[in-house]
Amino acid sequence: MAERMRLGFVGLGNLGAPIAENLLQSGHELYVYNRTPSKSIPLKEKGAIVCDGVASLARQVDLVFTMVSDDAALKNIVQGKDGLLENGRPGQIHVSMSTILPVTAEAMESLYTAQNKKFLAAPVFGRPEAARARKLNFVLSGDEITRKAVEPLLKDAGAAGIFDFGNRITAANTVKLCGNFLIAAALEAMGECLALGKESGVDVQQMWSMLTQTLFTSPVYVNYGNIVLQQKFEPAAFTAKLGLKDMNLVLSQAASVNQPMPLANLLKNNLQELVESGRENIDWSAMSIVSQKNKPETVVHG
Amino acid sequence: MAERMRLGFVGLGNLGAPIAENLLQSGHELYVYNRTPSKSIPLKEKGAIVCDGVASLARQVDLVFTMVSDDAALKNIVQGKDGLLENGRPGQIHVSMSTILPVTAEAMESLYTAQNKKFLAAPVFGRPEAARARKLNFVLSGDEITRKAVEPLLKDAGAAGIFDFGNRITAANTVKLCGNFLIAAALEAMGECLALGKESGVDVQQMWSMLTQTLFTSPVYVNYGNIVLQQKFEPAAFTAKLGLKDMNLVLSQAASVNQPMPLANLLKNNLQELVESGRENIDWSAMSIVSQKNKPETVVHG
Repeated sequence: MAERMRLGFVGLGNLGAPIAENLLQSGHELYVYNRTPSKSIPLKEKGAIVCDGVASLARQVDLVFTMVSDDAALKNIVQGKDGLLENGRPGQIHVSMSTILPVTAEAMESLYTAQNKKFLAAPVFGRPEAARARKLNFVLSGDEITRKAVEPLLKDAGAAGIFDFGNRITAANTVKLCGNFLIAAALEAMGECLALGKESGVDVQQMWSMLTQTLFTSPVYVNYGNIVLQQKFEPAAFTAKLGLKDMNLVLSQAASVNQPMPLANLLKNNLQELVESGRENIDWSAMSIVSQKNKPETVVHG
Repeated sequence: MAERMRLGFVGLGNLGAPIAENLLQSGHELYVYNRTPSKSIPLKEKGAIVCDGVASLARQVDLVFTMVSDDAALKNIVQGKDGLLENGRPGQIHVSMSTILPVTAEAMESLYTAQNKKFLAAPVFGRPEAARARKLNFVLSGDEITRKAVEPLLKDAGAAGIFDFGNRITAANTVKLCGNFLIAAALEAMGECLALGKESGVDVQQMWSMLTQTLFTSPVYVNYGNIVLQQKFEPAAFTAKLGLKDMNLVLSQAASVNQPMPLANLLKNNLQELVESGRENIDWSAMSIVSQKNKPETVVHG
């Protein structure tokens, strides 16, 4: 456990809230801010100090964690005269846990460096239940001294694993996008696989048990497989809306390096269909049934 | 180990040969046949009896295993006056390990039942090295008494796992197609993921190590990931040509139950591109680099 510190936490969503709570439980003094104030209440009851804006939060603490929904939200809380950067203490460290474009992380690092402050990229793999169980996996990149200083705090935040990708600030968010793409691809594959088995009259529960005992023993297949089998997409741990945002980031990054990703395109289209049909707040794993739902109405068994 | 039996084995390809060798090593008397005679030589040297056709093989044995390349090849060795069925002893059992359409397995079962003989579907998951290490996973369906009788022989053939899907003859081949689809989907996902990471300047070896330690711990991601990272697609353990055949079977089965599978379509197209460009005999995991190879010639980093 790290030495007791005065920490800030901005963004108390599905994943931000349990991470902030871990920091509190690890003994740190915690200043929190969330755009929707009601989300701060449970943390206030556990001892967090609720701030009325990011400027007042930035003035109180030595290090700020942020976990916000997208690149625009991050720029919004950092920049401007009421932003984290302008109001931060000298030498303040900003640890960004959000899934954002590598190029956004790079822009943030430049802004912070110009003010002799530090920006670190620390996106995270894990759903809210993993945060509560302290089984998160953080991917880390940026300035070396800052990385070493922050590692013990990530353990306090609920890290089971911390994967250090070195000095290049863009690395961690690239890895995060690659990982989220891989998860989304597995979801679509599971959906099509289970639909084919079911429609062909196989006991898909048994089939899934076999596949996850042999070739597909990973947590992604075991955990999401159960969700897809039961089609239990609510409550969402990670919404279709956020999934679509991430697939757009993947495609944007791919375009910036001129890399064709036909599977990422397919995943984006399925997530978009979920969102456009008004299901943006169900779990993104529902992407797995989009193809199935697109069956022609008249079913002719051949 | 099962009681010593007189067994037949037809189809001594990449996977058939080591399975046949396992049966020999388990102490059975083994009669073998392969269309290309030279492939029988290594087994002959280990004690197998080489037959000059499936008819003479069928007359010698109580049970025949087959591992042939496709539905047509299976029909070809079974049917006609020189086929396995016509020449088989009374009550002979045919255990089909090939990856074929469920409907083909159903047609075979009907033919065998009409002659009071038995046909069992026992497709197998595992590459040649898994066969040699006796770590294969068999999926089994068909007549119950026959299934129970065959299980010990599958252990002798190299099974680490035998998954019994019951009486319906179509079940095992459906599960096999679902599983192969899931592997192919993972290959394409790995290919796009690693290409994105590499083009974005990340240490992809480290990224893959991280992903396979956390979310993607499965054998499929660990083993194929190394092949894709090193782009070591020769010698092939399972060729692009056979992969394409399997994706066509998946799509054919999907069409027969009216199930859209957009990801399976994408995989089929990539495999087809490999085959049409003359790379049909390299490993099917090379599918993972088709999208990457399709990059426009002029690369503009954005």
